[in-house]
Amino acid sequence: MSQFWSKTVKNLTPYVPGEQPKLSQLIKLNTNESPYGPSPKVLTAIAAATNDTLRLYPDPNSDALKQSIAKIHDLPTNQVFVGNGSDEVLAHAFLGLLKQERPILFPDITYSFYPVYCNLYDIAFETIPLKEDFSINIEDYIQKNNGKNDGIIFPNPNAPTGKALPLGRIKALLQSNTQSVVIIDQAYVDYGTESAVSLVNEFPNLLVTHTLSKSYALAGLRVGYAVGHPDLIEALERIKNSFNSYPIDKLAMAGAIAAIDDQDYLKRISKAVIQTRENLIKDLNELGFETIPSYANFIFTKHPTKDAAAIAAALREKHIIVRHFKMARIDQYLRITIGTDEQCSTLIKALKEII
Amino acid sequence: MSQFWSKTVKNLTPYVPGEQPKLSQLIKLNTNESPYGPSPKVLTAIAAATNDTLRLYPDPNSDALKQSIAKIHDLPTNQVFVGNGSDEVLAHAFLGLLKQERPILFPDITYSFYPVYCNLYDIAFETIPLKEDFSINIEDYIQKNNGKNDGIIFPNPNAPTGKALPLGRIKALLQSNTQSVVIIDQAYVDYGTESAVSLVNEFPNLLVTHTLSKSYALAGLRVGYAVGHPDLIEALERIKNSFNSYPIDKLAMAGAIAAIDDQDYLKRISKAVIQTRENLIKDLNELGFETIPSYANFIFTKHPTKDAAAIAAALREKHIIVRHFKMARIDQYLRITIGTDEQCSTLIKALKEII
Repeated sequence: MSQFWSKTVKNLTPYVPGEQPKLSQLIKLNTNESPYGPSPKVLTAIAAATNDTLRLYPDPNSDALKQSIAKIHDLPTNQVFVGNGSDEVLAHAFLGLLKQERPILFPDITYSFYPVYCNLYDIAFETIPLKEDFSINIEDYIQKNNGKNDGIIFPNPNAPTGKALPLGRIKALLQSNTQSVVIIDQAYVDYGTESAVSLVNEFPNLLVTHTLSKSYALAGLRVGYAVGHPDLIEALERIKNSFNSYPIDKLAMAGAIAAIDDQDYLKRISKAVIQTRENLIKDLNELGFETIPSYANFIFTKHPTKDAAAIAAALREKHIIVRHFKMARIDQYLRITIGTDEQCSTLIKALKEII
Repeated sequence: MSQFWSKTVKNLTPYVPGEQPKLSQLIKLNTNESPYGPSPKVLTAIAAATNDTLRLYPDPNSDALKQSIAKIHDLPTNQVFVGNGSDEVLAHAFLGLLKQERPILFPDITYSFYPVYCNLYDIAFETIPLKEDFSINIEDYIQKNNGKNDGIIFPNPNAPTGKALPLGRIKALLQSNTQSVVIIDQAYVDYGTESAVSLVNEFPNLLVTHTLSKSYALAGLRVGYAVGHPDLIEALERIKNSFNSYPIDKLAMAGAIAAIDDQDYLKRISKAVIQTRENLIKDLNELGFETIPSYANFIFTKHPTKDAAAIAAALREKHIIVRHFKMARIDQYLRITIGTDEQCSTLIKALKEII
């Protein structure tokens, strides 16, 4: 604490990301990265952009990247916003769309950055408990405070549970909730969830966010995006242009365009992750674990008798890192990122020894 | 305007960066980029980092980059903050250090992003007029409101004038202004200005910001940094960790480290720019221009009879882009980035034809 800090700084409880250990030789299943590298076309595109023109500013509007994104979603570019990772996109959305008079709503168990943004920007929020089985009950959102809210946000599939809502439930929410912004955070959508992007032209209050850090295997490049009605996108652009004119560097832009353009590769590696996930769940169940059916590139699992924190610590001694949250309701669960088949076999072998 | 916008968005007047034209074959002297490419070691380092590990998140703390920066300034790493361009560093500094009760102070003619940040974060500010010769008079800051302010920020050298204050004047300001944060924005320091970094351990309220976009020739990579007392740095870290955990991507990190480590290259290309600047000023003066002595990689110049906007438009027809600000006091000036010797010769030739 310092006399020179603003009140904003004094009141913050910053987000703590999953560990990025600097040791090699680890099996890193703690931050939901892709076990496969990015499309080879990404590396080629970055190599082509690595030249003396790095002396020049990038296009502040990232138009070429927006065009690639717009194309895969069959939308015009003024319905696309891009940012330095989906965390930056979300930050701008909290300040530009969710900072209102009444509380916004999100699940009690969800991406733990949401309350951090609220804290940063002084946004009132209330959390809605997940049901006993960790599913989101959209009626709870519709009925909360007699239908009065100033925004709703949740990931679909949700993190860290991996549970997904079918598109019909998202639509039902939007039909009943037309007066505040609804943000669906689709960080993990490519692992088997129906996308809500098909609804953005029907509901002008729907914003759908995406990241290239998971299914596109580009966590190291920091690119995320949002799609929605042009008015919502304009709000994000206005915030962005009052914060940092050039958030996407030239290399990130080149790599992201190549990644988005290679949808075949995306589908191939996403499918491989899904296959490994289903095998891992089966193997875990055979060890007595109870695993929530997952639509993400991670699973959320607990053992009926063995303490989750103790398992995580024991795995760590075997150089396998998984994520454990010391939080009410979920402190007996582990969130395990889907690795390669080989990594998952090593994990299962280690768990057999531990249990 | 939309019913879904927050009040913050509705009240914004976003920053407008200098144009990034998509045409080639232009002589681009409008956004103060380096006329020379980055160190060859930068390109080598980026190439080495362009591989499958892009699937992994970068180090959220950018420790290796902080170490390189700390080394050149002979400071520990907890006195270094890094961000996605110095614009992001400044944004966090406005929210984390300059958002207080009383107005902050900056010059009436300066980097035009400062009032935009104030608008974004609802920070009160007052501007202090530059003296008639466009110099900053630090007594005006010391005396303003009987010495009561909640922060002072200006670039040294100032933009778009290119005028610099000697270190003694910065020190005098800090000696008289100990109760609020003073930010010296050193975007252009490598072109002949004494750095205020030597004062950070003497004055715990001094933050000094830098960019790699100008003298390091890496505008395309988006890296900036700040140095100061550990408490000031901690404020920036807390904001950053409540906004975006991973602002520096892996390639930007690799390139920035190589750039910082190659101080010989930095000195060589900065010296070349200074030499070209002095020649350009001489040539302009021979054409009747009145040019402010510059300590930056741009000059601020006016013609006694020919309208500045008209000159800029005429240059544009000849495919030369310079920057003109439609603002009180400076609307008869042009800000011209120092190009290569050849580009500056072409500029002078074009101006001879125009005038």
